[in-house]
Amino acid sequence: MPSNYGGPDSVRGPLVAVGGAEDKLGDRIILRRFVDLAGGSAARIVVVPIASSYAGEVADRYRAVFADLGAAQVDVVDAVLREQALDPALARPIEAATGVFLSGGNQLKIATLLGGTPAAVALRRCHAQGAVVGGTSAGASVLSQHMIAFGRPGGSPTQRMVTLSPGLGLTNRLIIDQHFRQRDRIGRLMAAVALNPFLLGVGVDEDTALVLDAENIGEVVGRHSVTFVDGAEITYSDVYQAKQHANVAIHNARVHVLTHGQRFDIVARRPLSPAVPASLPAAELELLDDD
Amino acid sequence: MPSNYGGPDSVRGPLVAVGGAEDKLGDRIILRRFVDLAGGSAARIVVVPIASSYAGEVADRYRAVFADLGAAQVDVVDAVLREQALDPALARPIEAATGVFLSGGNQLKIATLLGGTPAAVALRRCHAQGAVVGGTSAGASVLSQHMIAFGRPGGSPTQRMVTLSPGLGLTNRLIIDQHFRQRDRIGRLMAAVALNPFLLGVGVDEDTALVLDAENIGEVVGRHSVTFVDGAEITYSDVYQAKQHANVAIHNARVHVLTHGQRFDIVARRPLSPAVPASLPAAELELLDDD
Repeated sequence: MPSNYGGPDSVRGPLVAVGGAEDKLGDRIILRRFVDLAGGSAARIVVVPIASSYAGEVADRYRAVFADLGAAQVDVVDAVLREQALDPALARPIEAATGVFLSGGNQLKIATLLGGTPAAVALRRCHAQGAVVGGTSAGASVLSQHMIAFGRPGGSPTQRMVTLSPGLGLTNRLIIDQHFRQRDRIGRLMAAVALNPFLLGVGVDEDTALVLDAENIGEVVGRHSVTFVDGAEITYSDVYQAKQHANVAIHNARVHVLTHGQRFDIVARRPLSPAVPASLPAAELELLDDD
Repeated sequence: MPSNYGGPDSVRGPLVAVGGAEDKLGDRIILRRFVDLAGGSAARIVVVPIASSYAGEVADRYRAVFADLGAAQVDVVDAVLREQALDPALARPIEAATGVFLSGGNQLKIATLLGGTPAAVALRRCHAQGAVVGGTSAGASVLSQHMIAFGRPGGSPTQRMVTLSPGLGLTNRLIIDQHFRQRDRIGRLMAAVALNPFLLGVGVDEDTALVLDAENIGEVVGRHSVTFVDGAEITYSDVYQAKQHANVAIHNARVHVLTHGQRFDIVARRPLSPAVPASLPAAELELLDDD
């Protein structure tokens, strides 16, 4: 496996982490942004529906939406067994892609089927060379190095509320949760961050995305919010010694909630001003009023 | 937090992952190797006993051993609360160190107390610039990006047998387990690798170490074995869908067991020949006969 991807001149592509249930019928501002980042009318997009139990239907739906949004080409890379995922032929469409989109479903299925395969290496390499990689729900969780595999809902962090597992490793700084407000996941995201406050926790609501550029500036796109949990200044937590299922104490975690158009500097760990860009189109303003 | 450590000319230091219970009274070949890698009589070593509940005693013991083995200087960096660990003064001895050694105890305590602190950044930076970083037991587990936080013993992998958590991130390719043969941990290491076969599983026995150089060649040093679990060619596993505590199926994992003096290429995922170097000293040969 190569130890680095892309030469010194290549610029890493954007990441688009979608919280699930993104609009596929209306303005489709998230999926439209994804197609734009992939090159618009020159976009060569690969849909990876591996996470889903209904991969065929899911792939057909995204194929139709991306084609309708003007992509030049849409291919599908799927596998039901790891034996199929090991086939080097699966890597080829990914190598040529300007955008790769991972569907929802079970994030552990993506990691166990794709991890360490030629297709996963191709995915990391194409991202390192500039392609946009996006995912929704399970497909968002799997983008990062440390992945939330599963957990329990709730506002208060408890011991063993969250189970981590290795993801695809396209970013090492974040741990991404999805369906965030809708499934009451702030407790598990705080518990995950407390395990090693090096990580910045990112909770993405449904029909909302964090679009991360090569300089690690993240922009919120969509209907609801993205919640950032920063544990770097935590002064106390007993997560390493709390009994199973006990409540966990966390002092001095910092939380930010950002809405459409707002941006966050991942490296500096702070939101950027101004809050709302002046150029927000009318259709998007309506969305903001609809909450 | 800086996004990279060391300039283009710096060579990453070695890693020394010890399986616990290493000899501190006899030939001490593992700790001696650590001091040699830190510069021998010029070594400036920092002992980090944070994992331990008896940090004072543990630190005193390693301080005496490293001094006895000829190190020029031995400092101790300890913290009981994260509030102390956030103090930038803690980073200073680490910045000046040629070797850092992490004691045994609870690996989650190291990650929760040190993660994201100036001391953790200093540790990554000094390693990137050439310092050796070693750890025993919990201190070995925490070296890697993906860390086994805890789990259950047993030879057969079962669902939720192993719980992962983010470690210190000094290597991204390995997941390290310790007290390996002695605590019957091959099941949990296989389960961890199946979660994402990108990882190479490394199970280090007691009084044994894997010494990893900057080219990702690992050498086994000590009394027992190091077991490598390579999942890249796994053709089937149901780890993403097995019920809690159910047995998990894994087809075509590859396992290597290496003993003293043998080397393993981490990137190519294969053992190197010859099996035993010609220059093995008599004292070490005796150790090999003692199993």
